Amino acid sequence: MIRTITLAALLSSTALAAAPADPAAREKAFDASISAADQQAWLKAMASAPNHVGSPHNKANAEFILSQFKAWGWQAKIETFDVLYPTPLETRVELVAPEKISLGGQEPTLPEDATSANLAGALPPYVAFQGDGDVTADVVYVNYGLPDDYKALAARGISVKGKIAIARYGRGWRGLKPKLAQEAGAVGCIIYSDPAQDGYGDNDVYPKGGARPDFSVQRGSVADMITYPGDPTTPGYGSVPGAKHLSRAEAATILKIPTLPMSYGDASKILARLGGPLAPPSFRGGLPLAYHTGGDGKVQVHLLVKSDWSLKTLYNVIATMPGKDRPDEWVIRGNHHDGWVFGAADPLSGNVAMLSEAKALGALAKTGWRPSRTIVYASWDGEEPMLLGSTEWAETHADELQKKAVLYINTDSNSRGFLGAEGSQQWQHLVNQVAKDVVDPQTRASVDARLRAKLRADDFAGGGGGGGDGLGARAVSAAEKGDDLPIGPLGSGSDYSALLQHLGVPALNLGYGGEGQSFGNYHSIYDSYDHYIRFDDPGLAYGAVLSKTVGRLVLRVADAPTPPARYGDFAATVRAYLTEVKALAEARRKGDEKREALRAGNAFALAGDPLDPVAAPPAEVATPVVELAALENAVARLEGSARAFDKALAAKDATLAPAARAQLNALLRDIEQTLLIPEGLPFRPWYRHAITAPGRFTGYGAKTLPGVREAIEERRFADANRYAGLTAAALDRYSARLEAATAVVK
Amino acid sequence: MIRTITLAALLSSTALAAAPADPAAREKAFDASISAADQQAWLKAMASAPNHVGSPHNKANAEFILSQFKAWGWQAKIETFDVLYPTPLETRVELVAPEKISLGGQEPTLPEDATSANLAGALPPYVAFQGDGDVTADVVYVNYGLPDDYKALAARGISVKGKIAIARYGRGWRGLKPKLAQEAGAVGCIIYSDPAQDGYGDNDVYPKGGARPDFSVQRGSVADMITYPGDPTTPGYGSVPGAKHLSRAEAATILKIPTLPMSYGDASKILARLGGPLAPPSFRGGLPLAYHTGGDGKVQVHLLVKSDWSLKTLYNVIATMPGKDRPDEWVIRGNHHDGWVFGAADPLSGNVAMLSEAKALGALAKTGWRPSRTIVYASWDGEEPMLLGSTEWAETHADELQKKAVLYINTDSNSRGFLGAEGSQQWQHLVNQVAKDVVDPQTRASVDARLRAKLRADDFAGGGGGGGDGLGARAVSAAEKGDDLPIGPLGSGSDYSALLQHLGVPALNLGYGGEGQSFGNYHSIYDSYDHYIRFDDPGLAYGAVLSKTVGRLVLRVADAPTPPARYGDFAATVRAYLTEVKALAEARRKGDEKREALRAGNAFALAGDPLDPVAAPPAEVATPVVELAALENAVARLEGSARAFDKALAAKDATLAPAARAQLNALLRDIEQTLLIPEGLPFRPWYRHAITAPGRFTGYGAKTLPGVREAIEERRFADANRYAGLTAAALDRYSARLEAATAVVK
Repeated sequence: MIRTITLAALLSSTALAAAPADPAAREKAFDASISAADQQAWLKAMASAPNHVGSPHNKANAEFILSQFKAWGWQAKIETFDVLYPTPLETRVELVAPEKISLGGQEPTLPEDATSANLAGALPPYVAFQGDGDVTADVVYVNYGLPDDYKALAARGISVKGKIAIARYGRGWRGLKPKLAQEAGAVGCIIYSDPAQDGYGDNDVYPKGGARPDFSVQRGSVADMITYPGDPTTPGYGSVPGAKHLSRAEAATILKIPTLPMSYGDASKILARLGGPLAPPSFRGGLPLAYHTGGDGKVQVHLLVKSDWSLKTLYNVIATMPGKDRPDEWVIRGNHHDGWVFGAADPLSGNVAMLSEAKALGALAKTGWRPSRTIVYASWDGEEPMLLGSTEWAETHADELQKKAVLYINTDSNSRGFLGAEGSQQWQHLVNQVAKDVVDPQTRASVDARLRAKLRADDFAGGGGGGGDGLGARAVSAAEKGDDLPIGPLGSGSDYSALLQHLGVPALNLGYGGEGQSFGNYHSIYDSYDHYIRFDDPGLAYGAVLSKTVGRLVLRVADAPTPPARYGDFAATVRAYLTEVKALAEARRKGDEKREALRAGNAFALAGDPLDPVAAPPAEVATPVVELAALENAVARLEGSARAFDKALAAKDATLAPAARAQLNALLRDIEQTLLIPEGLPFRPWYRHAITAPGRFTGYGAKTLPGVREAIEERRFADANRYAGLTAAALDRYSARLEAATAVVK
Repeated sequence: MIRTITLAALLSSTALAAAPADPAAREKAFDASISAADQQAWLKAMASAPNHVGSPHNKANAEFILSQFKAWGWQAKIETFDVLYPTPLETRVELVAPEKISLGGQEPTLPEDATSANLAGALPPYVAFQGDGDVTADVVYVNYGLPDDYKALAARGISVKGKIAIARYGRGWRGLKPKLAQEAGAVGCIIYSDPAQDGYGDNDVYPKGGARPDFSVQRGSVADMITYPGDPTTPGYGSVPGAKHLSRAEAATILKIPTLPMSYGDASKILARLGGPLAPPSFRGGLPLAYHTGGDGKVQVHLLVKSDWSLKTLYNVIATMPGKDRPDEWVIRGNHHDGWVFGAADPLSGNVAMLSEAKALGALAKTGWRPSRTIVYASWDGEEPMLLGSTEWAETHADELQKKAVLYINTDSNSRGFLGAEGSQQWQHLVNQVAKDVVDPQTRASVDARLRAKLRADDFAGGGGGGGDGLGARAVSAAEKGDDLPIGPLGSGSDYSALLQHLGVPALNLGYGGEGQSFGNYHSIYDSYDHYIRFDDPGLAYGAVLSKTVGRLVLRVADAPTPPARYGDFAATVRAYLTEVKALAEARRKGDEKREALRAGNAFALAGDPLDPVAAPPAEVATPVVELAALENAVARLEGSARAFDKALAAKDATLAPAARAQLNALLRDIEQTLLIPEGLPFRPWYRHAITAPGRFTGYGAKTLPGVREAIEERRFADANRYAGLTAAALDRYSARLEAATAVVK
């Protein structure tokens, strides 16, 4: 009750003033309503108690957010979904041989961290959507638990079959680790935080510094995100009342083996006792020991997980400010509010920035301004377990969203530092323009100028090589030339996924970071207000900057006669991706030739150490020349169409007649949906976007032109040819739409 | 006495047989006398007691070696030099604040390591030629203690002035660390072995594995090798009776500040207590802590070193087998016999391989064979303190050596694995031919085939990029094409230095390695017979291979009518170096432009974290275009001259008349001396070789075209122009000699 009163006390209203006449003045007025102090107070209250899905404080936070939106003049409601969300009934992990040592358990209270004393109802270390079980087995250390790691183990004669795999966090998406262990025959999985990643290898550990101490554990979801997100039992449709729920056994994204996360304090007790060969250099982390593979029977670990698999209720807060001119064109903006424990950085730092925007937009509205398009603000629930709130909402409202949504703008954790932006590249120029207009609070330069300086200074420090291939090199080059900085592609890991990759709604994801230390408390009980204020974004200065950044994007897209997208930037990006894919195919062909030549000459055996035997890489089918001609042609057409359209619109935008404007906007509003491949991507039809998807073996990290690129990487050469064609067809649809739009404008 | 009896018992003689008629049969007969069992027995005896300079067992080893050479039929003697060689009278290192902890002291006895119980007379942890002193001061962690590290510290406002610098071993030559600390104003220096380099970051620690345990300390010399090696008090001339000795204060290569080496067990007690800013990422080692710079007064360390600075006697064993045809053309081959404690790997593993060769050559001689040229075998003393035995010998006999020496072949520590060879590249083809004729004991392939397989397999594993720039890329390319593998340039760190870099005698340095773990016991009391037999080269199989490799080189050079050098290989190598230097100059110019552009735009300040301030790189004079035309022309002439000579000799070698042969050999014998720059290199006139020198800021690592390359790196642009000219002149002298030799042959 005290908690609710605290939240209610934060409700505030804003005085009336005159509506600013021009966009710049409007943005200035918007900025004036952004308050870091507001955000800090909201953060403290919202992060004061455990707020995972199903917790009382999470519901209270949703109700608080709802009340705020209403107080600020928004049409707001809570939309609920009943979803499968497991919580731990019992977890146990212990070393039983060569000696008995109890491991695991809740993280300890620290006097320097106030909320760590407030653990009633907090989740213990746990990963959602693992498979319950009770196993005792030998242990194999599998490094990051990714395909190359299993290849390295197999070359050393080590298998996880019938054993417990212990993997370290990092590199790939968390859920890949137990999934690949399970596929390799493991009976259980432990995922631990190696200190090289986010512990003392990175910084002083909490509470002296912000990095992960040896007793801190990263919780998370291990649902098979790369197959589909959302409620595992309602794939592709909303978990609305009456919807069919698959059984646990039928749900493809729930794992089958028991899995627990672990601190490095505990993990070192297992790893220090492992026998078997010395692990290869790429397996070595930051613990003060020589890492071995295990698997020789020296160690036995008992792992038990038992969960409550009942449905829990999600509370999405959906707030709307109807557009005065184009009410059926929606600009959607969201950030989740559920955390793993206190969730100060993840997600509340982003959520309070979003609340600031909503308050400021409400204040603008009170001066008489109304957006031209409808603005929808969404505070999602259940992001942490697997993007539940946003996915179920998007699946439920798919038809309406595909008709009305112009852009989805997402944020999540925020921190101190530099602007990061990814998403649909037709919005790249807009993001660059906004970045030039937002002031960095530490340097008083624009956040654009600061990011360019960072790219160039890092490149200089790294020897001036231009950041290697791909996005990094393009970014350094753009920073040097003064071109727009490229924005990267979206993989997965936050609430844009269903909108972008399932429905074809263009999306942006933004956040500041690089100077805070929030990774060190990620998904532990120490992701707290105290940690955030000391180590992540003191005073929430960057919370305010995030509000000003996203607010500008929202205002400019909502109010422009035609949303300010530039399709040439998308075309140039696709060209860069195609260049990468061609280089990949070529490198694969050369690598295959080298491997076979080395195999034929027995070179791997000659090069190996007979006292530390490593098998030669196995023979593989040579990479053929992939049929990329249609894709080449489609990209060339796209470049031409986009150039022509951008040029035509630039010439006529100011003078377009209303009828033509309406026709133009109708053609562009859902153009991103032409990129959806109806049958979806191989192994995962839910993902339909032809240009970007979470990598099957990266997870968070995007794979671009995924149907082609991953097929080459995984040696599915028939798929590579087929998806090159499907991707070309998608780009041709996109080009045709641009060509139609050009005809309207001319 | 028992020890001497043990050594004497190993004396053996070889039965007479018929002298092999042709070279191949001779090498087969040579191989038959090579015995790994011999080597193992010698190793056990010679490594049974401490054998540093001045120790009774080191003298006994010299006498044993002498007796063996004599028994095998060589003309052998011990040649002594009385040199300055300090030994510790008292060492003390302790933490005095924030708490008192005693550190340092001798390494402990291990039951698994027999000789570690035999520490009477053993050196405690100590570095020779440091500057005695007694200081108590705050501590600064300086990473590897190299120039870039001091730049990084300065950018963070940290100075070592008046403080004790603690540096980790690695990257650069040991002696650079206290030298640069001293130049930066430090009052003392500690050098410790970080576990990331050779401890648990590399392998299981001794005695479970071969890597360095937390109580093991690397001794060594810190004399300023890059200025000149040898007795610091007799620079450039032999320490013969009556020679003038400089005072300690006058000797440029003796440091002025007290310095001690340290284990990581002890160092972690200091490092864990350091305050100051978090150290930059490049400073982070393998200890389980967040590395800080220190320098804020939190820590005080007391460091005391007091040495006995008396002269000690070196015992070089010099054995000669006179040449029957060309007694005044010498093939010299050497390996030192002094160690830091027991010295099993370093140097005795190489020394016993050399003894095997001497025994086998003696056996050949007993069948009636005599070499065409004179063969000189040298077992050097005092290599560890600073190449004392070889340098004093070379300086003493400079005139005779410059008249007679055809080639010097050096070995030092040997281990299991792959052939490594560096040296004067006109011998590159010979080394490649020998490597094709020597069988690897683990794979039964030739050591050449195995090395090629390793280069190609590592390149494949690394992504097939060809090993980056420079030697690695050239090696991978040669391995793929079947060309001769390149041999790298010689820097310093073993006994070839005076002969090659001061006198201009061409040199080769050879050894096997890459699969043993000798680095983990390097210069500690655990560089023992037990460690060597378990972890480095069980059964000394690679000791025997080294003997067969070097023996072939000795035989082929000693018996060929004209030594089998190929000058085109040298010319191609110099061309590659020039290409590197040009790329360096170009990269420097571009880097200077980038830095100034970033400075002008305030980009470093914008990119920096205001809460972790790092100053921008300071302004520097822009790199001009260096005057390389003369050097370009000289390299082109060299390529032409070398090609013409190699072709001419190949056509006529079999049929050359004796008078022409004598004239030819006289022209070629000292051709390497044309590469000496009379005035020597900047700051270090002792080093005169125009093509290779130990790097001023690398030490062991060679810098090629050093007068030009280092001047560009260090922004001494007048030197760069000047040494480009001096180097061109040296190459022109070399070309002229080749042209004269071609005229003789044609």
